[in-house]
Amino acid sequence: MEERALAFFREQRKIIGGRLDDILNRKSGDLGGPHLWGRDLIERLRAFCFLGKMIRGGLIILAYRLYRPELSDAVLDMAAAVEIMHSSLLIHDDIMDRDATRRGEPSIFHQYRLLGEQRGYSDPLHFGTSFGICAGDIGFFLAWELLTSLDMEPAIRMGIQQRWSAELASVGLAQMQDMHMGFEDRVTEEEVMRLYLHKTARYTFSLPLVTGALAADTEEAVSSLGWLEKIGERMGLVFQLKDDELDLFGSTEQTGKPVGADVEQGKKTLYWLYLTRLLDGEERSSGELSGTDGPALHRALKKERLDASDLELIRGIAEDRGIRRKVETRMRQLSRSAEMTIRRLPGDEAYRDMLLSILRYNLHRKA
Amino acid sequence: MEERALAFFREQRKIIGGRLDDILNRKSGDLGGPHLWGRDLIERLRAFCFLGKMIRGGLIILAYRLYRPELSDAVLDMAAAVEIMHSSLLIHDDIMDRDATRRGEPSIFHQYRLLGEQRGYSDPLHFGTSFGICAGDIGFFLAWELLTSLDMEPAIRMGIQQRWSAELASVGLAQMQDMHMGFEDRVTEEEVMRLYLHKTARYTFSLPLVTGALAADTEEAVSSLGWLEKIGERMGLVFQLKDDELDLFGSTEQTGKPVGADVEQGKKTLYWLYLTRLLDGEERSSGELSGTDGPALHRALKKERLDASDLELIRGIAEDRGIRRKVETRMRQLSRSAEMTIRRLPGDEAYRDMLLSILRYNLHRKA
Repeated sequence: MEERALAFFREQRKIIGGRLDDILNRKSGDLGGPHLWGRDLIERLRAFCFLGKMIRGGLIILAYRLYRPELSDAVLDMAAAVEIMHSSLLIHDDIMDRDATRRGEPSIFHQYRLLGEQRGYSDPLHFGTSFGICAGDIGFFLAWELLTSLDMEPAIRMGIQQRWSAELASVGLAQMQDMHMGFEDRVTEEEVMRLYLHKTARYTFSLPLVTGALAADTEEAVSSLGWLEKIGERMGLVFQLKDDELDLFGSTEQTGKPVGADVEQGKKTLYWLYLTRLLDGEERSSGELSGTDGPALHRALKKERLDASDLELIRGIAEDRGIRRKVETRMRQLSRSAEMTIRRLPGDEAYRDMLLSILRYNLHRKA
Repeated sequence: MEERALAFFREQRKIIGGRLDDILNRKSGDLGGPHLWGRDLIERLRAFCFLGKMIRGGLIILAYRLYRPELSDAVLDMAAAVEIMHSSLLIHDDIMDRDATRRGEPSIFHQYRLLGEQRGYSDPLHFGTSFGICAGDIGFFLAWELLTSLDMEPAIRMGIQQRWSAELASVGLAQMQDMHMGFEDRVTEEEVMRLYLHKTARYTFSLPLVTGALAADTEEAVSSLGWLEKIGERMGLVFQLKDDELDLFGSTEQTGKPVGADVEQGKKTLYWLYLTRLLDGEERSSGELSGTDGPALHRALKKERLDASDLELIRGIAEDRGIRRKVETRMRQLSRSAEMTIRRLPGDEAYRDMLLSILRYNLHRKA
């Protein structure tokens, strides 16, 4: 069942990729003439976009096809624009998170850093950071130009652009909040969930679904906007909570990511919150931690590099004290609620089923 | 005559500022609810926008009023949006240029850096940089939302958005080129002028004039678009060349900026180019530099901190070898060409005269 979801995204990725190629070829001509760095940027952006799974573009197409049997060029342009927009956000994120690797390859700012090193520029990190900031900015402007030019009813195009710009402002503020929380030792469950909602769920799931349906612009599509928004929020929260779980309980072989990285980076996940509550004794009703577990957990949560025994300790406590179960229950509730809404959704049954497959994938995925 | 230009911008600034206040008050409510950093960001953005001269917003209004007697709310929204957009670009520029001061106050990333220091965060510079990147991004999205929602004919609104997004991509690439040239010892006159065209002239002058006229949307306005573009390019080049001149020959008392900063920062201005050509002997026809002037100029151009005698040497050579005159001749030619086109422009004579005043201001300003 979950394999269907992955196959769907792979297929959409090919279609969006073809469109993206055409668009970037055109822009390479426009920008490469007057600008020394134009073609170079377009090629880096192209390679970077193509490494992504194009989930957001795929969800736009899914929502569109719930209500329209045939794809339109305009909705493909929109999906391509959104992939450029998202890649541009990631270019900036990687600077903030100091991630030298993204999508299995050197991140964009890191590529420029290496270029600066090759050329013997002073302070190649600053050179890379600066070029990365520009690259992200230019990506935003390219995506914006595409969304501005969508061949659609003006009121529909306006609605799509308004939702994207408003939600992106929200994503930027959530990113600030995320970095801020990395420095703070006190966060509430509500803050964590609100961050998940704005940084991941609404942006990655609700926004593509809602704007894909807006683009379809049928009566059924318009009547579904509120539902699609809610479905997206819940699917997205499930996705994020699963991400947290895989960070602790997944295997590097399957996820391709180091286990425990969230803890090492001081990310304030729901797991982190529940674990530190045990230390604070706020959850005394469930019994104190044993005399040695408490200080050991405290130390492990502060570490910048976890070893196997730290991980075993954290996993053991999360299992024994019902934290893993608690997060899983939350995921299941959200998933059930999303499923009920999906089943009530009007539109093409095949695409409604695909939404269910994606939901199950979010809940059961191992990578 | 030039005083009229300044008075005009001061007056428009009040009008745009009022609109900007209303817009930011509304956004403060929208973003302050769900986001911890929403209100804080809006207040920093507001203070930062209000420190600017709002030249771009003022030029939009000027071009609009060439063709329409009364201002509209939509054109005010547009001017306000453009000021937010420009401030956001500056927020990113300051990170790249490591400018702790902008518009006479701490730059935005530097404000966040200071906040990080106060709170004892590790690596406050990185914290400031990261928050500055987000702040600029969010500013772009806010401005984009405003431009998307302009209460205008859809085709007009689309044209305005397309021109802004395309030109902003161009500005980003010019910014890359500018940084790149800072590291290179060989640049051509054509590269320098092309950079001036894309980084300053088209963005600061052509784009506001053209999109202001687009917003007016009268027959005369539409017939003037090509002329306004050319006028803007030439006015903007004059502005930039004057900037270079003031950097060498201006006085800190009048400009409020340190003299010789371009040389210290390794900026590849037209002056720099002509001066280094003397060293290369490419301009042998005008005679070699004296035995001591050559090495002294070479040293001075490499310095990161110029003293009074370095400056005197550079100024003396630029005067004696006709470099200053050459740049001035270029400015006068551009200015004359712009003036001829302005005189042929249809539209309200009072605003045409104002364009001439601004042109003269660009040519004769001391600050």
